[in-house]
Amino acid sequence: MEHPTDPSPRIDGPSLDPNDWQAMRQLAHTMVDDMLQFLKSVDTRPVWIPPSPTALSETNTPLPLEPTSPEQVYLTFRKNIMPFVKGNISPRHFSWVEGTGTVMGMMADMLAAGMNPNVTIGNHMAMAIDARVIEWCRQLMNMPDTTSGMLVSGGSMANITALSVARNSLYGGQIRRQGLLQTGRQLVVYCSSQTHNCVNKAVEALGIGSDYLRLIPVDEQFRIRVDLLKHQIAEDQAAGLQPFCIIGNAGTVNTGAIDPLDELLDIARAEDLWFHVDGAFGAVAKITHEFSPQLKAIEEADSLAFDLHKWFYVNYEVGCVLVRDRKTHRNAFRMEADYLTMHERGLASGPETLSNYGLELSRGFKALKVWMSFMEHGLNRYRTIVERNIAQARYLGDLVTKNAHFELMTPVSLNIVCFRYRFSVTEVDTQNELNRELLMRLHESGVATPSYTILDGKYCIRVNITNHRTQSKHLRLMLDKILELGIELDQ
Amino acid sequence: MEHPTDPSPRIDGPSLDPNDWQAMRQLAHTMVDDMLQFLKSVDTRPVWIPPSPTALSETNTPLPLEPTSPEQVYLTFRKNIMPFVKGNISPRHFSWVEGTGTVMGMMADMLAAGMNPNVTIGNHMAMAIDARVIEWCRQLMNMPDTTSGMLVSGGSMANITALSVARNSLYGGQIRRQGLLQTGRQLVVYCSSQTHNCVNKAVEALGIGSDYLRLIPVDEQFRIRVDLLKHQIAEDQAAGLQPFCIIGNAGTVNTGAIDPLDELLDIARAEDLWFHVDGAFGAVAKITHEFSPQLKAIEEADSLAFDLHKWFYVNYEVGCVLVRDRKTHRNAFRMEADYLTMHERGLASGPETLSNYGLELSRGFKALKVWMSFMEHGLNRYRTIVERNIAQARYLGDLVTKNAHFELMTPVSLNIVCFRYRFSVTEVDTQNELNRELLMRLHESGVATPSYTILDGKYCIRVNITNHRTQSKHLRLMLDKILELGIELDQ
Repeated sequence: MEHPTDPSPRIDGPSLDPNDWQAMRQLAHTMVDDMLQFLKSVDTRPVWIPPSPTALSETNTPLPLEPTSPEQVYLTFRKNIMPFVKGNISPRHFSWVEGTGTVMGMMADMLAAGMNPNVTIGNHMAMAIDARVIEWCRQLMNMPDTTSGMLVSGGSMANITALSVARNSLYGGQIRRQGLLQTGRQLVVYCSSQTHNCVNKAVEALGIGSDYLRLIPVDEQFRIRVDLLKHQIAEDQAAGLQPFCIIGNAGTVNTGAIDPLDELLDIARAEDLWFHVDGAFGAVAKITHEFSPQLKAIEEADSLAFDLHKWFYVNYEVGCVLVRDRKTHRNAFRMEADYLTMHERGLASGPETLSNYGLELSRGFKALKVWMSFMEHGLNRYRTIVERNIAQARYLGDLVTKNAHFELMTPVSLNIVCFRYRFSVTEVDTQNELNRELLMRLHESGVATPSYTILDGKYCIRVNITNHRTQSKHLRLMLDKILELGIELDQ
Repeated sequence: MEHPTDPSPRIDGPSLDPNDWQAMRQLAHTMVDDMLQFLKSVDTRPVWIPPSPTALSETNTPLPLEPTSPEQVYLTFRKNIMPFVKGNISPRHFSWVEGTGTVMGMMADMLAAGMNPNVTIGNHMAMAIDARVIEWCRQLMNMPDTTSGMLVSGGSMANITALSVARNSLYGGQIRRQGLLQTGRQLVVYCSSQTHNCVNKAVEALGIGSDYLRLIPVDEQFRIRVDLLKHQIAEDQAAGLQPFCIIGNAGTVNTGAIDPLDELLDIARAEDLWFHVDGAFGAVAKITHEFSPQLKAIEEADSLAFDLHKWFYVNYEVGCVLVRDRKTHRNAFRMEADYLTMHERGLASGPETLSNYGLELSRGFKALKVWMSFMEHGLNRYRTIVERNIAQARYLGDLVTKNAHFELMTPVSLNIVCFRYRFSVTEVDTQNELNRELLMRLHESGVATPSYTILDGKYCIRVNITNHRTQSKHLRLMLDKILELGIELDQ
C-alpha cells in the first residue's frame, strides 16, 4: 500500500515527551528524594504554616502560553507549593477526618499515572486489580459473596452511589426512566441528626429533597433515638409518604458515635426499607476485635460507604461503596451504547464495563495504591494501628479528664475526642470565643492541628486520630500547648 | 503539666512509614527508572497484549493478613500488572476517547500523593493551585469572569454537576429541599441522539427520568436537527411539561460531530432554558484557530463540561465543569455544618470550602498535574498538537478515501475517523461481522487499537486521535495492517 512519503509537517512533530529523557530522569529522582526527605522529617516541622504572600503572588499568573523547563516548573513547586501543605501528613494533625497517606501509596500513584489506564472498560490488568481490591474490601467487611462494589473518590460519592441504587431499586426500576414526579409518592430517608451533610447533598442530588431526609434526634451519646425513628416512620406512612431507606452511622464525623446498627437493621427488615451504613471512617473499626461485634450489622446491610483514604491511611482520593446484591447494583446504572459493546477478543473484550456500577465512565487506577498498600502491610498491621488510634483517643480522653483545666465534652467514641479549655468566664459565648481563639493560636503555633465542632451550642476542640504516624507524645505535646495558650488567654 | 511517662505499648508503636528509608529510596528510584524506560520505549512494544493467565492467577489472592516487603510488592506489580497496560500510552492507541498522559503529569501525581491534601477545605497552597487551574480553564474557554468551576473525575461527573446546577436553579432553588415530586411539573432536557450516555445517567440520577431526555434526531453529519428540537420543545410545552435545559455537543463520542451551538444558544435564550455544552474532548478544539469560531457559543453557555485527561493529555483522572454564574453554582450545593465553619485564622481559615460547588467533600490534589503540565508546555504547544491530531484525522480520512479497499463511513469531524474494510460480501450482517473480526485481530496483532461504533446499523472501525505521541507513520502502519487482515479475511 502506497502512502505519501513526505507528509505535511502539520501531521508530524514533537510529542509532549521529555526532550531529554536523562535530564527528566534526574529531575524525577530529585523529586522522589525531596518528597521522601520531606515525609521522613515531617515531625521536625510545624504541622501547618499559612501559604506565604510570595507563594500566593508568584503562582497568581495567567494561563501560560509558552513552555517552561521541567526543572523550573519543579523549582516553583518546591518553593511555592510543597512547603504549604495542609498538614495531614504530620503526626500532629487531627483535623476533620483526614488520613495520613504512605510512601508506598505515593509511589503507587506515580506508577498508576505512568500506566495511565482508564479503568472502566477493556481487557487489561488494571481492571483485574480494581476487582481484586473490591473483593478485598468485601472480605474486610465480611459481606456476602453476592456483594459488588465500586472504588470512588470518597465518602460523598460512595453515599450518593448507594442511595442511587436504593432509590432505583423501587417501583421495579422505573424511576430511572420515569423520574420521581411520575411515582406520585414522596420518598423519605431516615438518619440521625449527626449524619454527615454529604447525605443531605445526596438526597438533594437524587431529587428526593432534603425536607424528606428525616434527621432523627440523638441520645446523649449522639446516637439515633430508635424510638423516635419508629415514630417518624409510622407518622410518614400515615401521611401517605413512602419511607424507603434508613441510614445508620458507623462513626459520626462530630463525635465518632456509632448508631445502634442492629436495631436499625431490624427496623429496616420489618418495614421493608433499604438499610445503608455510612461508615466513612468508622466502618474500618470492623477490623478491630473490640468493635467488630458492634458493627456486625454491616454484614447484613444493603449497602455500605467507607473511605480508604481516611482510616486505612491510603493516599487521596479513594473511597468504596459496597452493595449487597450485585444485580440490584447493576440494574441501577447499566446502560448500552454502540461505542461500549463488548467484543469476544481484543482490547474491548474482558470484564464488564464498570460504568454499569456507578456514575463515572472515566476512572483512574486508584485501585493500585490500595492493592500495593494492602499487600505491603497486611490486615494484621492495619488492625494494630487502628486499635492504637482508638487507644490513643482514650488516652487523650483520660488526660483531659484528669486535668481540671480541661473539660471533656462527650465520652470518647472510637477515635474522636471533643473537649475544651475551661476558661474562668461563665458566659457560654465567651467560652466559645476563647476556645475558638485558642484553636487558631494552636494552629498558628504549628504544634498541632485538631479541628472543632459545636456540641449543644458549645464550641469544642475536636481531635480525630486517623493517623498512623501519631505517637502518644504528640498528644501530650498538643495538650501542653493548649494549656499554655489557655493560661495565656485566660488573663 | 504531668503526663504518665510509661504509656501502654498500645498507644505507641511503628507507623506505616518505611522501616528502611534508604532502601525505600532505592526502590522508588527503580520504580521511576522502570516507568520512564517503559514510556520511552512504548512504541517498540505491542500497543496491547491481554493479561496473561499467570498474571491473573498470581494476583487472584485473598486479602493479605501479613506484610510483604515493598520490594516484593513492586516485583509482583512489575511482573503481573505493568506489562498488561490498557494501551493508551502508546502512539498507536486510538480507542474510545482516551488521553496519553505525560511524564510530568505522572511525577505530579507522585508529588500530589506525597503532600496528600484533601483539597476541599482549609488554608493551604493546594487550594490556591486548584483555584488557579479553574481560572486557567476559564481563560482557555474565554468564559466571563463571573465563571466558577470544579475539577472532577471526568466528563460524567462534570455533566452531572452542571445538570444539578441547572435543575437546582429552578423554582427559586426549592428543588434542593422540596424534591422533584413537589414541583408538580415534569422537567425535560434536550440533546441530540448522538449525546454521550453519561447524560442519560445524569438525568436518571437527578430524578428527572431518561424518558424526559429528548434525544433529538441528527442530520447526515450527526448534528442535532434544530428544526426538530424546536418542534419537540413546543410540543412538550403544549403538553404542560417544563423544558428547562438544552445540551449541545462539542464533539460527539461516535463521530466527533459538533452541534450548531450558536443556534442552540439562541433557542435556549429565546425559551429561557439552561444551555449546557458537553465538550468532553471537543471543547479543547476551542484553543485551535480553526474551530474557535465554531465553538464561540461556549463563551455564552450557562455551563460547560470537558476533560483534561482526554485531549489535554493530562494523566487520569481529571475533568472540569465551568458554570457561568458563580452564585447560581454555589446556590446549588452550598451547605452549613458545625464541623466545617470557617475561622478567621489558622488551618480552618482561607478559601471557602469547595464542597459548596459540587458533590464531593474529599478531593485529592488533581489540580497539581494540570498546573505542572500547563506550566511545562504552555498553551501554544497544546494548540500545535491538538491541531496536529485534527490534521492527522483528515490525513487518515484521505488515505482511507483514496484506497478502494476502505470505505469512509462519515466525513471526518474533528479528530475522529469512522471507516471500514470493504469485504466482497454484500450482506450487511456479514460485513459487520467481518469488520468486527478484523478489529479483534488488529488488537491481537498489537499493531494498533482503534475502537468501533455502529453508524446506521453498520459496524465501523473508529479511530480517535487524542494522542500527543501519534505520528503519521503510526496511522500508515495501522492501515497497512488492516489491509493485510482484510485481504486475509476476505478469502
